[in-house]
Amino acid sequence: MIEQKGILFILSGPSGVGKGTVREHLFKQKTDLQYSISMTTRDKREGEVDGVDYFYKSREEFETLIEQDELLEYAKYVDNYYGTPRKYVEETLASGKDVFLEIEVQGAMQVKKRFPQGVFIFLFPPSLDELKNRILGRGTESEELVLNRLREARNEIEMMHAYDYVVVNDEVQRAVDKVQAIIASEHCRRERIEADYKKILEAEL
Amino acid sequence: MIEQKGILFILSGPSGVGKGTVREHLFKQKTDLQYSISMTTRDKREGEVDGVDYFYKSREEFETLIEQDELLEYAKYVDNYYGTPRKYVEETLASGKDVFLEIEVQGAMQVKKRFPQGVFIFLFPPSLDELKNRILGRGTESEELVLNRLREARNEIEMMHAYDYVVVNDEVQRAVDKVQAIIASEHCRRERIEADYKKILEAEL
Repeated sequence: MIEQKGILFILSGPSGVGKGTVREHLFKQKTDLQYSISMTTRDKREGEVDGVDYFYKSREEFETLIEQDELLEYAKYVDNYYGTPRKYVEETLASGKDVFLEIEVQGAMQVKKRFPQGVFIFLFPPSLDELKNRILGRGTESEELVLNRLREARNEIEMMHAYDYVVVNDEVQRAVDKVQAIIASEHCRRERIEADYKKILEAEL
Repeated sequence: MIEQKGILFILSGPSGVGKGTVREHLFKQKTDLQYSISMTTRDKREGEVDGVDYFYKSREEFETLIEQDELLEYAKYVDNYYGTPRKYVEETLASGKDVFLEIEVQGAMQVKKRFPQGVFIFLFPPSLDELKNRILGRGTESEELVLNRLREARNEIEMMHAYDYVVVNDEVQRAVDKVQAIIASEHCRRERIEADYKKILEAEL
């Protein structure tokens, strides 16, 4: 009766924070989420399947896609491109399925520009105590080191500013539960539901 | 380490939608929520305890509290006042606990004016099909009746506009799960977390 479009969820955060682990645990559970398959120019490894592990493209194809704005985000690592195909995401959302991206902070900022209606989740280092300890160190470090850490923490907190939610990765299952709660609650947001209800009223009478 | 203030959650919706049932089931589960005890001028019934079932006040006390803006919301039913004491809510929130109100739509609108930072959840009638059936009836009703229902549905949807979330009460446990997800996810909202992290940075250095 209602054609509800899917929601795009983006999990990101500083490198080393455990994004991949949280994503893996999330997809081990019962979920209606669709994981977005990335596109890459790196060689297909044994056992990998095109359209399952990655969409494999030549460098020329990839660069053409960049020019045609066919990537929601992309980056180059060690001479190979990696990116998120825009059409795949858009078509999956249009079919009513939620899409889940797990990407680096730089990529998330590219997605934010092209797709601000996405739901951006920032995965934060394990604990507030760790943040505090990392900043202060053991009390024996040089002022410079402490200042560097403070700057780093400030940078992380500033990146956080572009996100809708912050999940502290203190324990994988707790973090996964929070991501699940965010997904469930976003489907209850009035802005989304209201439009659907208005559509019914207009369609029926 | 962090002094996090509690969040005020308001569950409301059209009368007969099942707010009380959802609230009861919610509080049967493990929860850190504090239910806000109402204030009333009606007589204490046998077995009821002041400060547990209600805060019992005389009519003069209640009217003085209204004048002093000590009620987050209030209404009069059958010659008795019922209301939500502002101080109790504010002190519980300040102690770091979430507070949960289950109130009528008119009361929720009063709370919204005084406490816009609350999280407003609108409980919607059992199903979209029911809404549709209620509007169209059996096809044998007068045009006037159908128009009345349409007007009523429009009013409900317009009330919805002041809320943050809409939960369809199609099944009690599903509705409770959604309310729980909303509570968990609101604690992850960046606006709240960011302020806490900034406080740590400022306090520590």
